[in-house]
Amino acid sequence: MTTASHQKIAIIVAGGSGQRMGTSLPKQFLELAGKPVLQHTIMAFYHAYEDMRVVLVLPDAHRGYAEKAMRLSEHFPQLTVIAGGETRFHSVKNGLATIAGPSVVFVHDGVRPLVSTALINRCYEAALQHGSAIPAIDLKDSIREVHADGNVAADRSRFKIIQTPQTFLSEVLLPAFDLPYDPLFTDEATVVERLGHKVHLVAGEERNLKITRPEDLVIAGALLD
Amino acid sequence: MTTASHQKIAIIVAGGSGQRMGTSLPKQFLELAGKPVLQHTIMAFYHAYEDMRVVLVLPDAHRGYAEKAMRLSEHFPQLTVIAGGETRFHSVKNGLATIAGPSVVFVHDGVRPLVSTALINRCYEAALQHGSAIPAIDLKDSIREVHADGNVAADRSRFKIIQTPQTFLSEVLLPAFDLPYDPLFTDEATVVERLGHKVHLVAGEERNLKITRPEDLVIAGALLD
Repeated sequence: MTTASHQKIAIIVAGGSGQRMGTSLPKQFLELAGKPVLQHTIMAFYHAYEDMRVVLVLPDAHRGYAEKAMRLSEHFPQLTVIAGGETRFHSVKNGLATIAGPSVVFVHDGVRPLVSTALINRCYEAALQHGSAIPAIDLKDSIREVHADGNVAADRSRFKIIQTPQTFLSEVLLPAFDLPYDPLFTDEATVVERLGHKVHLVAGEERNLKITRPEDLVIAGALLD
Repeated sequence: MTTASHQKIAIIVAGGSGQRMGTSLPKQFLELAGKPVLQHTIMAFYHAYEDMRVVLVLPDAHRGYAEKAMRLSEHFPQLTVIAGGETRFHSVKNGLATIAGPSVVFVHDGVRPLVSTALINRCYEAALQHGSAIPAIDLKDSIREVHADGNVAADRSRFKIIQTPQTFLSEVLLPAFDLPYDPLFTDEATVVERLGHKVHLVAGEERNLKITRPEDLVIAGALLD
C-alpha cells in the first residue's frame, strides 16, 4: 500500500443525536487554556498533517452553539460538520459516509484534546502497514475482577487501556461498518474485530486523556502548561 | 466488633531495602505545593483521626534525607520510622511487626498524597464491618486483553482499578502475612485472599492518584489548587 494513494481523514466524534443542550455545557465545549476543548481537538489533527481532512460529528442540537463558540467556518473553513447518530457506531457510520476513495481514517473522541502530532503520525504509519493502529497504554494500578459474589485479583499486565485515534485503512473500516449494529460495539476496534481482523496496537500517551469529569479539565490545563 | 477496642494504624510504604538515593530524587520526596509528597501523605492520616498511629516504612538509605527534608521528628513526633524489606510484602510485614492488640490497619502508598479524610473514614468503617476495605474505581477507558498472538476486546465493566489505603482488621491481616512470600502477592488484598478471605471493595477516588511519572506531580498540583 502506498502512502500517496491514501487520503487522511479524521472523524471526530462529539456526541449523538439524542444529546440536547442541557443546563450544564457538554464537556467538549468547556474552556481549556482559552479555547473550547473541541477546538483543541480539531486543531491537533490539522496540525499533524497539512492534507488532513476533518469530519466533525456533532448532535444537531449543538451545531449552532459550536458554530458560535468556536467560529467554526472562520477557524476551520475546510471542516465538514455532520449530524451524530443514535449511538457512537451510528455516528461514526455517518462520518464514514463522507469517504470516497482509499483513506487512512482516524476516529477520535472530541474530548481528547491533548492528542499529540507524534501519536497521530504513529497511528498513520502503523495503519498503512497493518491496516489498523489502536493507541494503548499500560495499567498503572492493580485491578480486580468483579463477580456476582465477590471479586478476585486480576493480572494487570494482561490488559491495556485503549485510547483514540483508532486508526484504520478505509478498506478495513468501511466493510466492518456495514455489519448490523450490535451493542457490544463499544469502539471501532471491536467492530473491525468482528469481521475477523486482528487489531494492531501502538504506544498511546498518558497525557492523551479523555475529559469526562471536572477534574479532568483541571488536569488537562496543567498538562498543557 | 466494637470501634473502641480497635486502634488505628497507618502503614505508609515508601520503598524497600534495595532502594538507593540515585541521581534523581525518588518521587515521594519531590515537592508538591511546597512540601514533599510523602509529607502530604503522612499528614492525611493524622488529619483523618486524632488517635491515628502512623508507621513509615522507608529504605535505610533514604532515612537521613527524609529526616532533613521533612523535619520528621519536629513535624511528626509520634511517627514510627522503620526500615523497608526486600519487597513490598516484606516492607509491610516489617510494619505489621509494630502492631500490638486489635487494630484497623491502613496500608497506603507513600506516593498517594491526595487521599481524603472521607476515603480514610470510609475504609475504617467498612473494615470494622467486613474485615477488609479496598478502595476501587471504575475503568474510564476501553481495555483489551493481550495474548501471545494478538489482543482482543475485554469488558471493562468486569474490572475495577484498585487504590490504597488497603484497610484490614489486624485479626485478618496479621495471619495472612505469616504466609511464605509469593511473587504473586502484588498488594495486601492478594495476600489476604490467599488465606481464603473475601475482599470487600469500597468506593475509591479518582483524585487519589499514584505519583509515578513527572506528569502525575503536575496533575496532583492542579488537583490540590
